[in-house]
Amino acid sequence: MIYIVIIAAVLALCFAAFNYMTVKRMPEGTEEMQEIAGAIRVGANAFINYEYKILYTVVAIVAVVLLVITTWHAAVALIIGSVMSGCAGFVGMKIATYANVRVSNRARETKDIGETVKVAFQGGSVMGLCVGGFALLGLFIVYMVFGIGMGQLEITEASYTNLIGLSFCPFTMTLSGYALGCSMVAMFNRVGGGIYTKAADMGADLVGKTEVHIPEDDPRNPATIADNVGDNVGDVAGLGSDLLESYVGAISSGIILAYHMFSKSLAEGTGMSNDLLKTLVLFPLIFVSIGLIASCVGIASLIFRKKPSENPHKSLNGSTYLASGLTIVLGLVVSWLMFGGYESSSLRNILGFQCGWLSSWIAATVGVIAGIAIGMIAEYYTSDEYRPTRDLAHASLEGAALTITQGLALGMKSCMLPCLILGAGIIISYSVSGMYGVAMAAMGMLSFVTATVSVDTYGPISDNAGGIAEMSKLDPQVREITDTLDSVGNTTAAIGKGFAIGSGALAALALMISYLYSYNDFSTELVLNLMEPMTLAGAIVGGALPFLFSGILIEAVAKTARSMVNEVRRQFKEIPGILEGKAKPDYKTCIEISTKGAIGEMRVPALLAIVVPVGCGFVFGPEFVGGILIGSTICSIMIAIFAGNSGGAWDNGKKYIESGHIKGAGKGSPAHDAAVVGDTVGDPLKDTVGPCLDIFIKIMSTVSLVTVAVFAENNLAAVITGLFG
Amino acid sequence: MIYIVIIAAVLALCFAAFNYMTVKRMPEGTEEMQEIAGAIRVGANAFINYEYKILYTVVAIVAVVLLVITTWHAAVALIIGSVMSGCAGFVGMKIATYANVRVSNRARETKDIGETVKVAFQGGSVMGLCVGGFALLGLFIVYMVFGIGMGQLEITEASYTNLIGLSFCPFTMTLSGYALGCSMVAMFNRVGGGIYTKAADMGADLVGKTEVHIPEDDPRNPATIADNVGDNVGDVAGLGSDLLESYVGAISSGIILAYHMFSKSLAEGTGMSNDLLKTLVLFPLIFVSIGLIASCVGIASLIFRKKPSENPHKSLNGSTYLASGLTIVLGLVVSWLMFGGYESSSLRNILGFQCGWLSSWIAATVGVIAGIAIGMIAEYYTSDEYRPTRDLAHASLEGAALTITQGLALGMKSCMLPCLILGAGIIISYSVSGMYGVAMAAMGMLSFVTATVSVDTYGPISDNAGGIAEMSKLDPQVREITDTLDSVGNTTAAIGKGFAIGSGALAALALMISYLYSYNDFSTELVLNLMEPMTLAGAIVGGALPFLFSGILIEAVAKTARSMVNEVRRQFKEIPGILEGKAKPDYKTCIEISTKGAIGEMRVPALLAIVVPVGCGFVFGPEFVGGILIGSTICSIMIAIFAGNSGGAWDNGKKYIESGHIKGAGKGSPAHDAAVVGDTVGDPLKDTVGPCLDIFIKIMSTVSLVTVAVFAENNLAAVITGLFG
Repeated sequence: MIYIVIIAAVLALCFAAFNYMTVKRMPEGTEEMQEIAGAIRVGANAFINYEYKILYTVVAIVAVVLLVITTWHAAVALIIGSVMSGCAGFVGMKIATYANVRVSNRARETKDIGETVKVAFQGGSVMGLCVGGFALLGLFIVYMVFGIGMGQLEITEASYTNLIGLSFCPFTMTLSGYALGCSMVAMFNRVGGGIYTKAADMGADLVGKTEVHIPEDDPRNPATIADNVGDNVGDVAGLGSDLLESYVGAISSGIILAYHMFSKSLAEGTGMSNDLLKTLVLFPLIFVSIGLIASCVGIASLIFRKKPSENPHKSLNGSTYLASGLTIVLGLVVSWLMFGGYESSSLRNILGFQCGWLSSWIAATVGVIAGIAIGMIAEYYTSDEYRPTRDLAHASLEGAALTITQGLALGMKSCMLPCLILGAGIIISYSVSGMYGVAMAAMGMLSFVTATVSVDTYGPISDNAGGIAEMSKLDPQVREITDTLDSVGNTTAAIGKGFAIGSGALAALALMISYLYSYNDFSTELVLNLMEPMTLAGAIVGGALPFLFSGILIEAVAKTARSMVNEVRRQFKEIPGILEGKAKPDYKTCIEISTKGAIGEMRVPALLAIVVPVGCGFVFGPEFVGGILIGSTICSIMIAIFAGNSGGAWDNGKKYIESGHIKGAGKGSPAHDAAVVGDTVGDPLKDTVGPCLDIFIKIMSTVSLVTVAVFAENNLAAVITGLFG
Repeated sequence: MIYIVIIAAVLALCFAAFNYMTVKRMPEGTEEMQEIAGAIRVGANAFINYEYKILYTVVAIVAVVLLVITTWHAAVALIIGSVMSGCAGFVGMKIATYANVRVSNRARETKDIGETVKVAFQGGSVMGLCVGGFALLGLFIVYMVFGIGMGQLEITEASYTNLIGLSFCPFTMTLSGYALGCSMVAMFNRVGGGIYTKAADMGADLVGKTEVHIPEDDPRNPATIADNVGDNVGDVAGLGSDLLESYVGAISSGIILAYHMFSKSLAEGTGMSNDLLKTLVLFPLIFVSIGLIASCVGIASLIFRKKPSENPHKSLNGSTYLASGLTIVLGLVVSWLMFGGYESSSLRNILGFQCGWLSSWIAATVGVIAGIAIGMIAEYYTSDEYRPTRDLAHASLEGAALTITQGLALGMKSCMLPCLILGAGIIISYSVSGMYGVAMAAMGMLSFVTATVSVDTYGPISDNAGGIAEMSKLDPQVREITDTLDSVGNTTAAIGKGFAIGSGALAALALMISYLYSYNDFSTELVLNLMEPMTLAGAIVGGALPFLFSGILIEAVAKTARSMVNEVRRQFKEIPGILEGKAKPDYKTCIEISTKGAIGEMRVPALLAIVVPVGCGFVFGPEFVGGILIGSTICSIMIAIFAGNSGGAWDNGKKYIESGHIKGAGKGSPAHDAAVVGDTVGDPLKDTVGPCLDIFIKIMSTVSLVTVAVFAENNLAAVITGLFG
C-alpha cells in the first residue's frame, strides 16, 4: 500500500511538468510585454538565488550541528527536506514569472475571462502540485530508506524496551529532521519574501500614489518592477513553502505520535500487534496521498474544461470543493481497507477508537471541514460583499483615525469564530479517536493542500498580469479582465491566509504533542502542566514572543520601505523627464534595495525563532520550552488572524471606495485618502506579520522537537536543581 | 496580631478623611472657575449615580443567585465587597471633583509648582487611602465574622476529612464572594468609565481640533465638560476600583491557597500544626497591613513637606519609593515575628520554604521589585525622554500611515520585557517558597497599592485643573504650571497602567491557582494539563476572548464618539454665536450622550466576562474553563501592555511635536496632523481596552472561582461522558 505514496507523488510532479510546459509554450505577446515580464523574472531570480545561497549555508551549518549532537540520519533527512522544499518554491516561482505575461496576453487575444482564468490557474497549479509532489517524494524516501530499509520501524517488545533506555528514538529524530529542513526553507522564503514584497509595495505607493499621484503599476514609478517581483517572491514562493511545511509537519507529527503512543501499548501487551502499529503509522501517509490524487482531479477539472465559467470565483471554488469532497470519499475507502479488518471492539479497547474503523476517517474529515470553514470566515470578514468590510469603508468618511480604529476592532473581533472551530475540531477529533485523532484532524485539514495552494498562487499571477497590462499600456478592456481576476485573487488570498494559519496552528499543536512525547519518556503520560512554574513562566514569555517578532517585522518593512521611498524620490529628482514618460526609471536599483533590505532584515527574526527555543531549552529545560511553545502558538494564532483580516478588510474597503460604491467618495476624495492610510497600515500586517507567524510557530515547534532529546538531559536548570537538591 | 489589619484600615480611612477635609476647605478661586468645576462635579455625580443604580441591581441579582446555588455566607460577603469597593470609588471620585479646581486656584495664587503638586497629590491620596482602607476593612469583617467567629478557619484532622467530602469549602467560598463583590464594582467603573472618558475625549477632539481648529479644553466646545467629567469617572473611580480588586484578589487568593495547600498537609500529619496554618493564612493580611501603613508614611512625607521640590516627578516617585522601601523593611520584621519561631529545617520540610522564615518575605519582596520594574519599563516605552517615543515622533514626518505602523511596532515590541520580569518573578518566588510564594509575590506587588493609586489619581486631577484653567481663561502662567503637572501625569499614568496590568496578571494567576484547588479535590495534586483536549480547546477559545472583548470595546467607544461628534456639529450649526464665544454651548446634552452611551455599550462586554466562564463551565466542565482562564490571561497581558504603551507613546509623541522638538514640525504642520491621528487611534487603546482587560481577566477568574464548585459536579460534558462512558 505504501506505493500509493510514490504513485501520487510522481503523478503530481508529472502533472506539474505538463502544466509547466503547456504554460511556457503559450505566446508572450508584444515586445513591450516581454521586456517587462523579463525584468520581473530577472529580479525574482536574482532574489531567490541570493537568498538560497544564504539559506543553504545555514542549512549546512545546522546539518553539521545535528550530526554532532544527534545522529547522521537526522542530518541527511534535514538536507533532503530542504532540497525538496527548495525545489518546490523555486519551480513554482519560476513558472509564476512565465505565467503572468501569458495571462495578460491571453486576455489581450481572447478578451474572455474564462479563458484567462484557465491560464492563471494552470500556472498556479504548478506551485500546488510541486508542494504535494515534492513533500511526498521526500517523505517516501525518508520512510523507505530509514524506516523500512534500516528497520527503524520494526518494533518488538524487546526493541521497545531498548527504546525506553535511549535518549532519543532514531525514527522520530529522522522524521523531525526532515520536517526541520522544510521549515528552514519556509522560514527564509516567508520572512525574506514577506519583507521584500511589502517594502516594495509600500515604497512604491508612498511616493507614487501619495506624492506624485500616478496610478498603481505605472511604468514611470521606479519601484513598480520591484513591487511585481515581490508578488512572486513573497506570495508564490513564500506561501508555497509555508504550506509545504505545514503539510510535512502535520504528516510527520501524525506518524511520530502513532509511533510513540502505540508502541507503548505494544510493549505493554494490551492486544496491540505490530501490524496494527504499522497501519496506524502508515494511515496519514496514505490519506494525504489520496488527497493529492483528489487534488490532481480537482485541478484537471478546471484546466481541461471546454467552456469555463465566466465567474472565476465559482470555478476556483469548484476545483477546491471537488478536491476536498473526493478526498473525503476516497479517504473512507482507504480507512475501510486499512482498518476494516479489525474488530470494532478491539479498536475501541486498544486504540480508544470510539467509532471502530471509521474513527480516524471521522477525525480527518473534521479537519477537512474545519479548514474550509475557517477559510469561509476569513472571506466573510474581508470581502466587500459582507457587512464588516462595508462598515469599514463607510468609516473612512470620518477620517483616517476612525478608519484605523474600526479596522483594528474588526480584526480583533474576527479571532473568535476560527478559534471556536479549532476548539470544536480538537474536541470532536479527540473524543472520536484520542490524541491520534487530533493529529489526524491536522493532517486532514492539509490533505488537499495542493488544491488550495493552486488557487492561492492564481492570485499573485493575476496581480502581476494586471501590472504588466498596465505597464505595457494594453487596451483598457484587458486591464478590466485582469482586474476582475485580481479582485477574486484578493478574496482567495484572504481565504488562503485563514487556511494557512488554521492549518499551521493545528500542525504546530500536533508537533507540540510529539514534542511532549519526545521528552517525556516513552512510558509516561502526556502532561503539559501550566501550574508548573517553569511552564507557566515559559507560557507568559512565549506569549510575548510573537508580539516581539511582529514588532520587529513591521519595523523591518518600514525601514526597507523608507530606503525605497528615498530612492524613488531621488530618481524623480535626478532623472529628468522621468515623470513625463520620456526617460526610463532605473528599476534595478529598487530591486537591489528590496533584495538587500529583505535579506538583511530577516536575520534577527529568523534567528529569534531558531535560537530562542533551543537556548531556553539548554538554560531552563524542556518544561519551560513546552510553555513557550503553547504560549507563542496561542498568541500567534490570534495575531495572525487579526493581522490577516484587518489588513484584508482595509485593502478591500479601499477598493470598495475606489469602485464608487459610496456616495460622495471616490478616488481622490478625503475618504479615499483615509482608506489609503488604512491599506498602507494593513500591508505589513496582512502580508508580512500574519504569514510569518504561521511559520514562526511551526519552526519553533520543529526545532524544539529535534533538539529536545539533548536539552532534556543537559540543561542548566537541572544542574542547579541537582546542586541544591 | 490580626488587629494590625483593623488598625491599618482605620488609620488609612482617618488619614483619607483628614485629606478630604483639608482639600475641601481650600478656596475655589473665581466665580467662573467655581461654575465650571460645579458643572464637572454635577456631571460626574450624575454618571456615578446612574451607574451605581444599575450596578447594585446586578449585585442584588447575583447575590440571590449565590444564595441559591452556594451559601448565604458568600452572598453576604459579595454585598460587603461591593459596598466597600463602591464607597472607595465614590469618595475618591468625589474629592477629585473638588480638588481639580483647587489645584488651578493654588497655581493661580502661588504660581509655585511645588505647592500646586501638593494639592493635587493630597486630593489623589484620598482615592489611594480609600482603596487600601476600605479593602482591608471589608476583609477584616469577613475574616473575623466568618473565619474566626463562625469557626470556618478551625481545621482539625477530623474537620479536614469532612471538607474532602464537601462540594465546596465555606471559608473559601466566602472570601471568593467578597472578591467577586469588589470585581463587579471594578467591572462597572472600569468599562463604563473607560467608554465614557474616551468617547467624550474623541468626540471633543474630532470636531474641535480637526474640524473647527479650536484648542483642547476650549469652553466653546460643547463636549469639553463631558471630556473633563470623563477623567474623573474613568481615570479616578475606574482605576481605584480596578486596583482595589487586584488588591483583594491577590490577598484572598493567597489566603485561599494557604488554606487549601496546608490543610492537606495538616490532615496528612506531616508535622504541620494548626498554629502554623493560621500563621500562613494570616501572613498576607498582615503584610498588606504594614504595606498600607508604609504607604500612609510615604503619602504624608510629601503632603507635610515644608519645601516641596520643583520637580513633581521626583516628589511623586520619592513618595512611592519610600512606601515600597518601608514595606520591604517592615515586612522583614513581620516575617521574623510570624515565622521566626519555627525551625528552618521544619519550614523547609513541611512547607517547602527553602530559605526558612525569610522565604515568604523574599517572595513578597520579589513582587514589590517586579511591580516597580514593570512600571519603569512602561515609562521607558512611553516617555519622550527615551528613544522609542522620539523615533515615533519622527515617524510622523512621513505621514499618518507610518506613524500608526511605527506605533503598532513599538507597542508589540514592548510586551517582552514585562513578561520576562513576570516570568522571572514566578520562577524565583516559586523556587523559594512554592506555589504559596507565587501568591505572595502577587500580594507583595500590590501591598503598596495605596501609594501607587495616590500618584495615579494625581494625574487626572491635574489634567482637570488644566482644563479649568483654560476654560476660565486664567493667566497663561497658570496653564503652564498645570501643563507641567499634566505631562508628569501622563508618565505616571503610563507607569500606573503597566503596574495595573502586571499586578492584575499576577492576581489573576493567583486566583487561577485557587480555582484549580477549588475544583480539584482537596486531596489531589494541582494540574492544568494543556494536553487535555478540553483544556487545550478552552485555551484557544480563551485566547480569542480578550481580542473579541477589545474589538467590542473599541467599537463601543467609536460609536459613542460618533453620537458626540454629531451633537457637537449640531450645536455649532444651530446655536448662533457659539464659535465667537457669544453664546454658551449646551454642555449637558453632551454629558447625557456620554453617560447613556457608556452605560448602554458596557452591557455586552460586562456580560461576556461574567457569562462566558460560568456558561462554559456548565456546558463543558471545569477543565475547559481552566483553559479559558489561562488562554485569556496570557493574551490579555499582551494586549493590555501593547495597548497601553502604543497609546501612551502616540500621545507623548504628539506632545513632543507640539513642544517644537522636531525641526520643521509644530502645531498645525502635516507631521502634527499625522501625530494627532496616532493619538486618536491610541485613545481607546490605552484608556479603554488596556485598563478593561485588567479587570476582564480578574473577574473571569473570580466568577469561575465562586461557581466552580457547582459546575464541577453538574455539567453537560460530564453527563454526556456518563451516558457514553
